[in-house]
Amino acid sequence: MTVKILAIETGTPIGSAALLTGADVVAEATSPLPARHLEWLLPAIMDMLETARWRVEDVQGIAVSRGPGSFTGLRIGMATAAAWARTRNVPVVGISTLEAIAAGVDAFGTICVVQDARRGEYATAVFARTGGENVRQTPDTVWTLDAVLGALPLDGPVIFAGDALERQWTAIMQGLGSRAVPAPRDQWTPHARQVGRLGFKRLASGQADDPYLLLPAYTRGPVRE
Amino acid sequence: MTVKILAIETGTPIGSAALLTGADVVAEATSPLPARHLEWLLPAIMDMLETARWRVEDVQGIAVSRGPGSFTGLRIGMATAAAWARTRNVPVVGISTLEAIAAGVDAFGTICVVQDARRGEYATAVFARTGGENVRQTPDTVWTLDAVLGALPLDGPVIFAGDALERQWTAIMQGLGSRAVPAPRDQWTPHARQVGRLGFKRLASGQADDPYLLLPAYTRGPVRE
Repeated sequence: MTVKILAIETGTPIGSAALLTGADVVAEATSPLPARHLEWLLPAIMDMLETARWRVEDVQGIAVSRGPGSFTGLRIGMATAAAWARTRNVPVVGISTLEAIAAGVDAFGTICVVQDARRGEYATAVFARTGGENVRQTPDTVWTLDAVLGALPLDGPVIFAGDALERQWTAIMQGLGSRAVPAPRDQWTPHARQVGRLGFKRLASGQADDPYLLLPAYTRGPVRE
Repeated sequence: MTVKILAIETGTPIGSAALLTGADVVAEATSPLPARHLEWLLPAIMDMLETARWRVEDVQGIAVSRGPGSFTGLRIGMATAAAWARTRNVPVVGISTLEAIAAGVDAFGTICVVQDARRGEYATAVFARTGGENVRQTPDTVWTLDAVLGALPLDGPVIFAGDALERQWTAIMQGLGSRAVPAPRDQWTPHARQVGRLGFKRLASGQADDPYLLLPAYTRGPVRE
């Protein structure tokens, strides 16, 4: 099955967009400047379409990162995806930014994604990589770093990714010892190609989200227990 | 000339959207909750289309408020307008939110729009209403209230509108005395119908903006002289 997919990732200051045919990446563009999503996103998509010789009407489905992440950035990406989906009558799926990061981690075992949600809180999700697939172990949740570490499996290595590693790697190491393994730094960030691949799986199985319900959504966990 | 226009105003916490045939308002919807632009905008537009029995492809032009105003709100409106314009290949025009407010003021003479831009600064523009038309006297500028009042004509009444009147009406009266006249309170806020009417004039005269250059844009004036 081939499906031509437009993927959008604007949950972090550096946005990206990609075109995929099924799971194969045809093109990917990355914002040259941080926090310029509105100025950058649509021109970048149109440039990619032209380079790939796709017309607007060739896009058969849209995958968009739905956070957690930048408040305004996510809304620019989702407004663009929802307007495109409704005006061209194509399905759209929202993809967890944490799931997109985990999909880009090149390792087996337990994968823990930790994004800084400010004010001492962290957006996190845990996945188990078996074969080529990530199996989600916990829902996207926002809580303290202690709570994140306390919810991990009790043995085996844990591969960490996410922007929280920039400042909290020492604390993670102190909490988890040698079980904590950092992913390579270039895998800490979500990319549109991962959003597109996760989106393709959902679209190919007939799933689609209501474009109107494409909202940045995650649960705040028990911050103080 | 009849042109079917979609108008979007998301520069203030309460958003609005309208459908117009030329200068005639066919439908207008207003957000029931403040700062819920992403959740509200596209469903509201689609509901209006259905009520008006317009299809997506009937919309021939888009007018969108381009600020000054709410950072995220404006970007949601403009991302929606730009995606719609590019995917349906229709022209789009960006309309100054201050100009939209002035167009809704029901008075003759000098009209001064003052929106609170935070931190002691105000986004302002001055218009002269002669006949049924506003003629712009100053570009959209952000500066102090003293500078706003200092740049007004030296005689004649000045009709004020804009959200800055909520807190600064006393200061305006003190600066300008009896020459200062407040517009009725329901004319302090921009409405999509005014955005649409101003957009129609520009679209009907063949003007259109590059959807990629639809950015919230205004000049910061000399804050301290």
